[in-house]
Parts: sequence; C-alpha cells; structure tokens
Amino acid sequence: MASASAILQLICPDRPGLVSALSGWVAANGGNIRHADHHTDAGAGLFLSRIEWGLDGFGLPREAIAPATAALAARLGGEGQLHFSDAPPRVAIFVSRQDHCLVDLLWRTRAGELPMEVALVVSNHPQLAGVCDSFGIPFAHQPIDAASRDAGEEAQLALLAEHRIALVVLAKYMQVLSPAFLARFNAVINIHHSFLPAFQGAQPYHRAWERGVKLIGATAHFVTEELDGGPIIEQVTMPVSHRDEVDDLIRIGRDAERLALARALRLVLRHQVMVYRGRTAVFA
Amino acid sequence: MASASAILQLICPDRPGLVSALSGWVAANGGNIRHADHHTDAGAGLFLSRIEWGLDGFGLPREAIAPATAALAARLGGEGQLHFSDAPPRVAIFVSRQDHCLVDLLWRTRAGELPMEVALVVSNHPQLAGVCDSFGIPFAHQPIDAASRDAGEEAQLALLAEHRIALVVLAKYMQVLSPAFLARFNAVINIHHSFLPAFQGAQPYHRAWERGVKLIGATAHFVTEELDGGPIIEQVTMPVSHRDEVDDLIRIGRDAERLALARALRLVLRHQVMVYRGRTAVFA
Amino acid sequence: MASASAILQLICPDRPGLVSALSGWVAANGGNIRHADHHTDAGAGLFLSRIEWGLDGFGLPREAIAPATAALAARLGGEGQLHFSDAPPRVAIFVSRQDHCLVDLLWRTRAGELPMEVALVVSNHPQLAGVCDSFGIPFAHQPIDAASRDAGEEAQLALLAEHRIALVVLAKYMQVLSPAFLARFNAVINIHHSFLPAFQGAQPYHRAWERGVKLIGATAHFVTEELDGGPIIEQVTMPVSHRDEVDDLIRIGRDAERLALARALRLVLRHQVMVYRGRTAVFA
Amino acid sequence: MASASAILQLICPDRPGLVSALSGWVAANGGNIRHADHHTDAGAGLFLSRIEWGLDGFGLPREAIAPATAALAARLGGEGQLHFSDAPPRVAIFVSRQDHCLVDLLWRTRAGELPMEVALVVSNHPQLAGVCDSFGIPFAHQPIDAASRDAGEEAQLALLAEHRIALVVLAKYMQVLSPAFLARFNAVINIHHSFLPAFQGAQPYHRAWERGVKLIGATAHFVTEELDGGPIIEQVTMPVSHRDEVDDLIRIGRDAERLALARALRLVLRHQVMVYRGRTAVFA
Repeated sequence: MASASAILQLICPDRPGLVSALSGWVAANGGNIRHADHHTDAGAGLFLSRIEWGLDGFGLPREAIAPATAALAARLGGEGQLHFSDAPPRVAIFVSRQDHCLVDLLWRTRAGELPMEVALVVSNHPQLAGVCDSFGIPFAHQPIDAASRDAGEEAQLALLAEHRIALVVLAKYMQVLSPAFLARFNAVINIHHSFLPAFQGAQPYHRAWERGVKLIGATAHFVTEELDGGPIIEQVTMPVSHRDEVDDLIRIGRDAERLALARALRLVLRHQVMVYRGRTAVFA
Repeated sequence: MASASAILQLICPDRPGLVSALSGWVAANGGNIRHADHHTDAGAGLFLSRIEWGLDGFGLPREAIAPATAALAARLGGEGQLHFSDAPPRVAIFVSRQDHCLVDLLWRTRAGELPMEVALVVSNHPQLAGVCDSFGIPFAHQPIDAASRDAGEEAQLALLAEHRIALVVLAKYMQVLSPAFLARFNAVINIHHSFLPAFQGAQPYHRAWERGVKLIGATAHFVTEELDGGPIIEQVTMPVSHRDEVDDLIRIGRDAERLALARALRLVLRHQVMVYRGRTAVFA
Repeated sequence: MASASAILQLICPDRPGLVSALSGWVAANGGNIRHADHHTDAGAGLFLSRIEWGLDGFGLPREAIAPATAALAARLGGEGQLHFSDAPPRVAIFVSRQDHCLVDLLWRTRAGELPMEVALVVSNHPQLAGVCDSFGIPFAHQPIDAASRDAGEEAQLALLAEHRIALVVLAKYMQVLSPAFLARFNAVINIHHSFLPAFQGAQPYHRAWERGVKLIGATAHFVTEELDGGPIIEQVTMPVSHRDEVDDLIRIGRDAERLALARALRLVLRHQVMVYRGRTAVFA
Repeated sequence: MASASAILQLICPDRPGLVSALSGWVAANGGNIRHADHHTDAGAGLFLSRIEWGLDGFGLPREAIAPATAALAARLGGEGQLHFSDAPPRVAIFVSRQDHCLVDLLWRTRAGELPMEVALVVSNHPQLAGVCDSFGIPFAHQPIDAASRDAGEEAQLALLAEHRIALVVLAKYMQVLSPAFLARFNAVINIHHSFLPAFQGAQPYHRAWERGVKLIGATAHFVTEELDGGPIIEQVTMPVSHRDEVDDLIRIGRDAERLALARALRLVLRHQVMVYRGRTAVFA
C-alpha cells in the first residue's frame, strides 16, 4: 500500500520553465513524484498542472506544505490548491425521490471506489430515508418548493456548515439551486439526464424521444448560475432504437447517469479535475 | 448466393391481424419470407412493417407485385412501398471541398457494402474531380452561392432528372437546399457534424470545443425544410478530452461522420428505414 | 398500461409459410400481435420465432394456450415454449463474497427493471446476508468447497426445488457447478469477468493486465458443462490504459459486469433470448 | 502554426527527482515544454517519460540534442530516444489483396492525419497496384509463399534498405514475418482482425461467429516473434448480433480494423507510444 500523497493543482500564465520549477521544488524537498500532468491552453495562454508526490520522507512537515505551495504559485503568478490523499472530503448528497444514483454512490463508497466521507443525505422528499438507513448514512428531510426556496436553502446551507461539507453532489435532485445559494457554496456537482448541450432544461428524455435520437446520454458537470451550463466533467451515451418508449429511455438513461456521475465524482475526489474559464481539464 | 428478394414497407392504422394478413398474402403467393419486422407506435396508433421474401418461385410475375401490394395496402387502409433487392437505386452524391465522406462512400460501394449505383458526384467546388476520376465516377462541377442559388438548384434538379437519380446523399455539402428544391426532390440524406440536436447550424466543432464537451458526435438524417431537423437515422459519438483542440475535434469527427453516414446509407439502401411523423423506425 | 401478453418461442426446420402459419394462428384466435421477431439460420436450416400477443380478448382460455401452441409447433415439426408476461419466474441468485452484481440486481428488481421474483440468495460465504436483509430477500448460507461439493450441490438443488426456482443467476459465484448439477438444473446464467473467449478460466483481470489489453470486458452467458463455453447473451467492453493497475481493471470491470449481467437477465426474463446449437438469438 | 518540436522518450529505473532532472535539463537549455507525460510501473520499478519541447529558441543546435539526451539518459541509468516532429518517418505498407486499410491509410496521410512519408507499398499480390497509383505511391509486387519465403523476405529487406524505411505497417498483410526477418527489422505494426487475445491465429471472424460473440474487435499491435502476441497499442470493438453472418462480421470488422490501425499508427508516428516488457504505455 502506497503512503499518503500530496496533490498540487496549479494554474498560471504559460511561460518556459514551469514544469521544471514545479518538479524541481518537489525534488528539492525530497519528494518522489507519483504523477505529473500538465496542460497548456495555448489560446488562453494558461498553464495547468497537477503534481502528486508521496509524503513519506518529504522534507516539509504536513502543515507547512500548503503555505509553501501557495508561495510557489504566487511566484509563478498563479494560484494553487493543495490536497492530501488521506483526507477524503466530507460530502453531502442531495436527492429527491429517485434512488438509482444514490444507491450507486453509497455502494461505491462502501466498496472503496469513491474516496469521500458521506456525511449526510439531504432530500426534499422523505422516500429515500430507508435507503440511507440501510447504508448507515444520516438522512435529512428538508422540504422545499418554489414558495419556500429561500428558507429551505438557508436550512440547507446551515446543514452544510454544521456538517463541515466540502462538496455537494446533486444525485437526481430535481430542484434548481438559486444564485444566492451558489454564491455562498459553489462546490457542487450535478448529473444531468441528457447529452448536454442537447436537451437542456426539463424532461430531456421526453424531448429525446420526440426528436427520435438514436443515442441518449448523461452529463456530469459542475453547477453554475447558468442552468445546465457549468463545466462538463464526464459524458456517457448509450444506444436506443425506435422500439424504446419514453420509459425505456428513462430506464436506459439511469445506467448512463450512474456511470457518468460515478466516474466524474471519482475524478473530482482524486483531484484529477481542474476548472478554468468555464471548462475542465481532466487528468485521467 | 440468395436469389433476389422483394421488400415491402407498409404503414397503416394498427389493428389485430395485420401480421397475419401480410405474411398470409406472401405465403398464399408461394413466397418464402426472409425477414419480417414489425413495429407498433402505440401513441400514434400506427403499425409499421417491413417484409422481405425471395422472388424465386414466387407466384406473381415481377411487374404484378407492386400493383398487388398497393391493393393490399389500400385494403388495410395504409400505404406501401415495394422494392427489389437487385435494383440498386441510382444515387447522386453532393460534396463541397472535404473528401473524407466521399472517398469512404466510393470505396464502400466498390467493396460491395453499399448496394447503389453512384451515377454522379455534384459539387459547388472543383477540387474533388480527381477523387471521382480515380473511382471512375462522373463529376459535375456546379458552382452555386447565395446569389446564384435558384439557378444553381435548377441546374442540379436537371442533373438529377437527366441521370434518373432516386436518392441524393449530402456528403459534407456545405450548402442548404432550399424548400423549393426539397418540394421537387425530397429523397435526401445528410451527415451533420454534431450529435443533434446539440449544435444545430454552423461550426458545431468550434461550439463543442467552447462548451467543453467530452464526447463529439455525428448524425445522419433525412433532410427536411427545417435545418438539421429531419428524421434521424444514425448517430455516432467518440470521446475527446481537454487536450483536443478544435482541429482535433474536426479530425476525430471525420471518423464519426464517415461511420454514421455509411451505416445510415446502407440501412436506407437496403430499405431497412421507415420514416413517419418526423421520425424513423430502423429495422436493423 | 398494457394487459398481460403471451409469448411463444418456436424453433423448427425452415420452410415457406412459417410466419404466416404462426401469425395466422394468433389472428384466428383473435389475438393482437404486439411483437413478432423471426430469424432464419440458413446454414442450420432452422427458423426461430418469438411472437408476443395480448391476452385481452384472446379466444382461448389461458390454460388452453400452451397445449394449443405445442400442437401447432408439433405440426411444424418443431418445438415451442410458452410464457406469460404476468408470471415472472422465481429466481435464485448465487453469490460468493463480492456484492456489486447482487446489489445491482436487487436494486433493479425493486426499481421494476427486472420482471422476476427473487425467491432467495444462496452463498457459500456468510458476508452478504446483510445486503439481502436490507432488501428483504431470504439468504441461505450454504458452505461448499471441493471436498464437500457433492453434498453442497445436493443441498442447493433441494433449495431450488423447495423454492420452486425456475432460473439461477450466478452473480459472481466463484464456484464451478458440476455436470451432475447441470444435468438436473440447467437454467443458469453466469457473468464472466472477461470478454470471452479471451481469458477463459480464473483471474482474467490479472491476465488482461499482463497482456496489456486496452479494453476489458464482461460476458453474460448460459452455463453449460464446458467452462465459460456456454451460449453468449451479452458482452460489454470498457477502455483501460497503461495507468490502470490490476485493481483498476477489477474496479472498471465491475461496471462492465453489472451492465452485461443486468442487460442479459432482462432479455432472458422477457423471453427475448432463444438458445440453439450453442448460440443465442437475441430479439432486442 | 507551432514550430517544430523535439520529443524525448526515456525509460530508466525509478527514483526520486526524475521529472525534475528531465524538465530541468530542458529548461536549462531554454526549451519550453509543450507536453510532459510520465508513468511509473511500480511493479517493474521503471520510470517512463515522454517530453516534448519547442525547438524555437532552444539553446542547443539540432545535431547536438541527441548526443546530449543520450548522455542525460545514461546519467539516469536508462535509455532515451530522440525524435523531431518535422522529420516524419519513411514508412512501407505491406498488403495482400484487401484494400480497406490501405485506402484508409493513404487517404489519412493525404489529409494530414498521419505524419509519415509513405515511401512504398509492398504486396505479395498484384491487385492493389491501381489503388497505389491513384494516390501516387510506388507499388512493389513481391510474390511470396511458404516455399519462397526466405528469398522473398530477402527481397523485402532489400527494398526496406533501399528506401530507407523506418517503420513497416502490415495493413492486412496475410503472411507471417519470419523470426529471421524480425531479427533484422523489428519496427513493425500489425492490425489483427480480432479482439486479442481472443481468436489468435487464422480466420478469427469465422471463429467469432461460431462462438456467437456479441461484439467483434480489432487489435493494432507491434509484431514480435510470438504470433499475435506483441505489445498492444489500440483495440476497438463493435456490436454484432445473431442476424450477422460471417460476411457481416467481416464487413463490420473492416471498420474496427481501419479505426484501430489508424489510431495506433498516429500514436506511434507522434511518438506517443513507449514499449517495455512486452507492453505499451500510450501517452494520448
């Protein structure tokens, strides 16, 4: 079993010598690089890097690494984020009444596929309490509708604060988070039940059926104020035919949704996803 | 080698006994059914059927079959289309300057994958004359632009009539056919370089890049007056990543376009595709 | 909601008039055909048919249909199997210690995707009792190993008889059923963790890693005496890369296994799969 | 348009500081790294790296770079290979009678997808001379069979030497190269018409049909003495059904073969593939 590692995500203006500067800093402190991925967006003039190194024998104490990498990033004119592989984030899963993504995520977490601590499940409906109970996860029933959205979101944000949540996963949560919510908490991943940007908005499977598509899809993305417009992390498509009714599209789509969300979440939890300028770089 | 077959496509209001009526008619005339596919669109109350039987030993002379099936269809309150497998349609391929779909279609035709007779290639640009020449296919350079569209389309329609064309394939033809053209000739297949309905219209790969999608696609569809809105026959997607620039999306997309168009065209040429109410049933 | 339907699977020597004979029989008894699929294996000289019709208003009482279709099949020189859509089979799921397929199947059954009654789960290990309990399914712990296989299989067969099991699903059951077992109960589906016939036998992911494959797969198949040699129902592949260790192949493979097994089982439960001469026709 | 770049592939025993040593060397000479990919095979204790940097403004003259990187690799106890992006390798394509891969490769080369110079096509049959002629590529008809293999391979090797060939692509060349040939020329890529290791050897589509598989595949790999056993570069699968005869599998397989070979060859030509211990690392 490998020891814990530190993961630095850095973004800065592109110029010669950046890979050397980053890897040199790690080496100078005695670190052994396990993964190093870089991407240059030539159009944007930006350099993105993800470096992961083992903490065993690293020259800096753990609490000194973040300040040091922040200083390094500042020297390069950019910004960095530091993570440790042995500090899985506390996550809240938001659901409504559909359980397929929830069951899948809880099973995958138990199976060790998703390095996170599911601190609680929040729902505007009571139906999925039993599922959470069977996995031993706290369930918070928090009714919310158009009229009560402001108060409901306040309550949700209080729950996130109370449980020290770092990431929210919308696993078929059939409500739109308000801009006010997102202004206060913006680490949110959603699974949309279409191959975005096709069929943005409501009832994508009904509209896909009407359009007579031959593939349906699902898109996992970060949530922004623009509905279904946030940076895409992962997309999955599956074939359908004229024999498939809307109910079949919904059924087949559940498999696409489960796969896309689980893959995207694993990438995010392992800090393999960097977001910039409305898009993602995914170091898979 | 199997003998030639007759293929009946029939659409009529759904009611009990239709499969029996159709297959009974074939059997009563001594035909051996090779393929029989049926689909009921319950919402529309429609029954769609494709029946293919061998002509060897069939009781009706070839020229009597179409009238007989038309009478049968009329009795069922519907409409039928009859085709013979040994009468490949005469096809015109419309292109502009990109040759990937053209080369692919001509090669597949030569390889025996596409049962059609490519009577001519029509282009608004002169560049692909050499490709056609190497495959021994007539090439008609027919310049056309916004100002000359009406006259150009007249000339195109005259070519279609002169060459007795039954089907037009738009193989990266970068012009929009006018409603007037389609009113006079509407058996037209197009390959659109996106996963419709995402990125309808121009420059889909540029827009796909901007949106940061993780899959790109191609859609083969029948052409209607509504731009990129006709019945979909086949769709193909391929994975892309943040490393792929617009040029890479275009390159990878060429493979999706070639596959989607070739698969769709083969299905159409074998009369496996039925169009109704803006959608297709594909008996693959 | 559609009423219940009868499903006839028939296999007989090919000759003209079979589609008509079958559909004519349904029509003569007042049945409305919902789906009719046929396949001719020209090399084998065999005709395979699956016909599904609504029971509402059908002229024969339910108990008379099976004898009538058996007589019809006999007249055609073949054999038929009759099923009713509202009589989901009683199924036993065999597992060992891995739970991914089990959780998936139980969830899909609860979600209405799999028309079966899971009568019990049988395992040679005790670990998955809790999973079954959370879904309210009886769990039978039946230890078995090489030395105790005969006695263990006797006990398993007694369980199958006691619970009137019609189908056994091996959902990562890491034991081989003996020819003696299969001689007495042969309706068994297995999920094999490779793209058969690659990597038959044990430890396919280790061997796939050693071989450096770029795709891994899973195969759902009927079980026969020949290890991993039974008729294939469904296969799924997923991409892997040099970055993936054996553990990653196992993890990614779990998704392929879940999908392949669930798709295959749904097809079998809806009587869309016909087995003949060591292969399957899948009327999807 | 980016200027030309140098590409260093290096493999050496793993130890801390390697990324820094490599990138530091590039930076110290004023190079701007465009891509840097690394992989550690922990089991083998090996570090693999591919670094690409722009030649514009690089401190060393072009002819001095290879000696300098060789010295660097030696210091690290490993071996390096240096390539320049503007020096496309001279390639010979070996074919027999099937033209689908050949037409595809020649078209892709003309379209700019494959950075290589096709110096000649070699065939043991005369049929494809016309295809080569239409693309302006020299064609060498070199009959060969079991009896004449030694002399034939001598003639082939002489052709490779005469044309200064760096890479041979077997594009449906239906002969096995002898160990003696490979001992003298081993930069050879092959496309095998199955999803290896399934169906090694002859007639894979016939055997796939007999086995009743639901997916067929193609595998692009480096050629070694072990038949169909060399390092895998790329694999593609496509769905088939019981309706597909052997001829259909062959037809559908052609698409898998074309895609797998073209993708693999592009990766090799861009020096994105590293071979070690019978496997590949593909930095895509």
